[in-house]
Amino acid sequence: MVSSKPVSAKAEAMVLCRVPRWSVGLWASPGWWRTTCTLRALVRPKRGPGCPGGASGPLACSMFSKVSSCTPEVMLTQERYPVQRLPFSVVSEEDLAAFERIVPGRVVTDPEELEVSNVDWLRTARGCSKVLLRPRTSEEVSRILRYCHERNLAVNPQGGNTGLVGGSVPVFDEIILSTALMNQVTSFNTVSGILTCQAGCVLEGLSRYVQERDFVMPLDLGAKGSCHIGGNVATNAGGLRFLRYGSLHGTVLGLEVVLADGTVLDCLTSLRKDNTGYDLKQLFIGSEGTLGVITAVSILCPPRPKAVNVAFLGCPGFAEVLQTFSTCRGMLGEILSAFEFMDAECMQLVQQHLHLASPVQESAFYLLVETSGSSTGHDAEKLGCFLEQVLGSGLVTDGTVATDESKAQALWALRERITEALSRDGYVYKYDVSLPVERLYDLVTDLRARLGSQARHVVGYGHLGDGNLHLNVTVDAFSAALLDTMEPYVYAWTAGQRGSVSAEHGLGFRKRDALRYSKPPPAVQLMQQLKALLDPKGILNPYKLLPTQA
Amino acid sequence: MVSSKPVSAKAEAMVLCRVPRWSVGLWASPGWWRTTCTLRALVRPKRGPGCPGGASGPLACSMFSKVSSCTPEVMLTQERYPVQRLPFSVVSEEDLAAFERIVPGRVVTDPEELEVSNVDWLRTARGCSKVLLRPRTSEEVSRILRYCHERNLAVNPQGGNTGLVGGSVPVFDEIILSTALMNQVTSFNTVSGILTCQAGCVLEGLSRYVQERDFVMPLDLGAKGSCHIGGNVATNAGGLRFLRYGSLHGTVLGLEVVLADGTVLDCLTSLRKDNTGYDLKQLFIGSEGTLGVITAVSILCPPRPKAVNVAFLGCPGFAEVLQTFSTCRGMLGEILSAFEFMDAECMQLVQQHLHLASPVQESAFYLLVETSGSSTGHDAEKLGCFLEQVLGSGLVTDGTVATDESKAQALWALRERITEALSRDGYVYKYDVSLPVERLYDLVTDLRARLGSQARHVVGYGHLGDGNLHLNVTVDAFSAALLDTMEPYVYAWTAGQRGSVSAEHGLGFRKRDALRYSKPPPAVQLMQQLKALLDPKGILNPYKLLPTQA
Repeated sequence: MVSSKPVSAKAEAMVLCRVPRWSVGLWASPGWWRTTCTLRALVRPKRGPGCPGGASGPLACSMFSKVSSCTPEVMLTQERYPVQRLPFSVVSEEDLAAFERIVPGRVVTDPEELEVSNVDWLRTARGCSKVLLRPRTSEEVSRILRYCHERNLAVNPQGGNTGLVGGSVPVFDEIILSTALMNQVTSFNTVSGILTCQAGCVLEGLSRYVQERDFVMPLDLGAKGSCHIGGNVATNAGGLRFLRYGSLHGTVLGLEVVLADGTVLDCLTSLRKDNTGYDLKQLFIGSEGTLGVITAVSILCPPRPKAVNVAFLGCPGFAEVLQTFSTCRGMLGEILSAFEFMDAECMQLVQQHLHLASPVQESAFYLLVETSGSSTGHDAEKLGCFLEQVLGSGLVTDGTVATDESKAQALWALRERITEALSRDGYVYKYDVSLPVERLYDLVTDLRARLGSQARHVVGYGHLGDGNLHLNVTVDAFSAALLDTMEPYVYAWTAGQRGSVSAEHGLGFRKRDALRYSKPPPAVQLMQQLKALLDPKGILNPYKLLPTQA
Repeated sequence: MVSSKPVSAKAEAMVLCRVPRWSVGLWASPGWWRTTCTLRALVRPKRGPGCPGGASGPLACSMFSKVSSCTPEVMLTQERYPVQRLPFSVVSEEDLAAFERIVPGRVVTDPEELEVSNVDWLRTARGCSKVLLRPRTSEEVSRILRYCHERNLAVNPQGGNTGLVGGSVPVFDEIILSTALMNQVTSFNTVSGILTCQAGCVLEGLSRYVQERDFVMPLDLGAKGSCHIGGNVATNAGGLRFLRYGSLHGTVLGLEVVLADGTVLDCLTSLRKDNTGYDLKQLFIGSEGTLGVITAVSILCPPRPKAVNVAFLGCPGFAEVLQTFSTCRGMLGEILSAFEFMDAECMQLVQQHLHLASPVQESAFYLLVETSGSSTGHDAEKLGCFLEQVLGSGLVTDGTVATDESKAQALWALRERITEALSRDGYVYKYDVSLPVERLYDLVTDLRARLGSQARHVVGYGHLGDGNLHLNVTVDAFSAALLDTMEPYVYAWTAGQRGSVSAEHGLGFRKRDALRYSKPPPAVQLMQQLKALLDPKGILNPYKLLPTQA
């Protein structure tokens, strides 16, 4: 199992110290922010025995030892997981000189600067890359990849490094290709709402940019303050607006991608309709940087809603949750923008660890329903009719509605801060699965029964409207035996329902071997063939997405 | 140019006789339906000199001569266009016996039955296939393709045969693989709105099926009475609901596809979110049957709107059309479901040839705005506010609103019957392009100036909300010289704006050489590589989509 050596409970707790710029209104309490400390003080990477180049290389891993630390260490991925370095070349002084010619002044070799990019946000993976490149243009990316392709140097494309499956950091010494300086908006059409920008634009910045022009981005994430739009597309990010605006496969209109050999594939059209040949851009949406490096994105932005309402409701059972969802879709129709659920144990944890009060009476399940529309009065009236219906029929036993932004944010916090409450409860085993909506909660019930007193809490919450369950198990401390009780049980259970073992996080490094639970052998084989076609030397984000065994 | 030998004016006029089951409310006047006659009486295919098998074959082309005719003939594609048969095998008696074992009683070799499937709806392409197979299951499709792959027999997948670019009929003697008997709904989830069905389900039937359950299909087309959902997906159909529900790349959740060698690729999940590996199904959406045969589809259906309103407006200029669109998106937001435009010449033709009266005063442009929402009162109020705004500001000079279904259909007829009015005006040259919305009408103006008195009418209309222009030129009779004046001018003009030379019709057989006007060489090369990977013998829908010259 790839997850047989997860992070320690201590390490997991420290995750809280290294939060990217999340959306403050939804995520952070003042207390939360007081715990924040700088990343540099938290990391003391150590040199891995298998780290190529070694002390004698141009940028030896031992140089990391200069960095001060405040515990805990993050183990090198090559030490924690059973993974073998592939026979790529090792970066030489000549290579660094060549990169300096391509991106002058933007070749980072300082270990302190590199460490942030070598460790993933969950602190479960750490590479020992010795060079990070910061191109500004697609042409520079092209020249870099052409060079790396010729030299057989592996490359790890990196956006905001907010991924949760170890996909955005090197596994060994892959060159980190950062999109951070590719952060320009190219154009925005105020008639069509089509935005074209470079891949390194931060989502929150884009969101502000289009909102000033009365549009919204079709996606929103907790990590929006750090994540790059190119990374969002490369990982096919889901998030909070998925229910309303759908998948990036529908809203991304064009991409510019640099292929492994440096070829620039210009599919950056800004057209809603284009049926000329195969829709190549789709290949790269969700490919996690393994088929090409996304350098620019064209995306359709919907008009900005004028009114947003949030209702928080209590439901007596999961059957009622489902019926409420059906009623909601029918009665709120086009203004429904979120339908989230959490179970009673989630609420207990949020109350216990974060001291948040439930705005409704104790229930088996809680729902957060959000509407976004173009008329305050109309939306309030629709929501009122819906609430009357579900309260009158007993589907919902109690509820409250937020009409102003601060109260809406307080209701959202109950749902959004579950992650934080869980991490304060102990060691957390996390699963993120898609299931047919009517079976969504059965997995929680089954696992709860299976684990019995071995677990502190087995909780379920998530994007019910999208069929996306976050299943979390808290325990006193990590236990390999308990892990064996859950894996592959959870994956097999999910597979039995034709579900997805990764709804929105992707496979990256840590989940790549779970792919076969959601995709049949011919599909896995075709994926491998596509990888071989587009990246015959395998230099792009190696050790990611595809299973270990061919 | 592939279109250097288009159909004669006479043939084009006869197109009217061979309409599939279009949506009657929108398309057909009583007079229109009176002109309908049976297809069989209209076709007299003749044997082509290059038709493999010949009279001595098991099913010689001369057998077509039994068919009665009422003119005009449709020329064999191999005679009309410069195309060479590729070295595929010719269907033998042994092959027919093998097919009979796979799909007993469903091997069609009767020339009269075959002729419908050999000729395309526009009557511009005719193959001389001698066998049509009607599988009922994916397993049968798999066995057929495995056999054809081994025998090097070319296959033309066919749904409702309503395509407009010659993609759905054989070019030579390809085996026609019909999805007509694969017409079962597998499941419908009334909570999530997810429909799973076989590829041969007719769109109108599915539409009825889900409407009875208070949902709608996310796509709607004039040809819905004939077209198959598998064909819709294979051609990435756009249509009337595109503005509201977006592309099939977003709404199709899963596909089952049989690959060229018979491998069944099961990506038929019914999940909104699934980030496990490359999203393989995307490859087949819009691939026009050249990469695999779609055998089943899982698709997300939105809730059925309770209220539909249609407004018909007059605008003084195209700048005002664009401003009205912006205002409309802002004020109608989530209930906007169509924004169509037509120019003054379109209205003149509709009045002159169909005797339809304009419901508004004479204008340079006309708009059809449709809303679909969950509250009659709210929608009417929003629409009222919008109309007050655009009339008050002079963006719109006159308008009418339909509140009942029959009046709404009458307004839709003005827009939908332009095609019919054009065909009554003379020979019609047709273009279907996507352009940045602000340049959409410039192409019409430019071409009108370029052609001067050589054309009767140069008109522009289409799905403005999607940036999709239908540019049509009517003349007394076909002229090759005039064609040279328009092509590649129109394609080059479109390319100059980074537009698409085929917005929604695809490339099929007749537009495949125009691909390079919308896609750069690296993209075309990658398409060819994908074709070679997935269909190394090239047996699937040969001579389609990819350019003639490799």
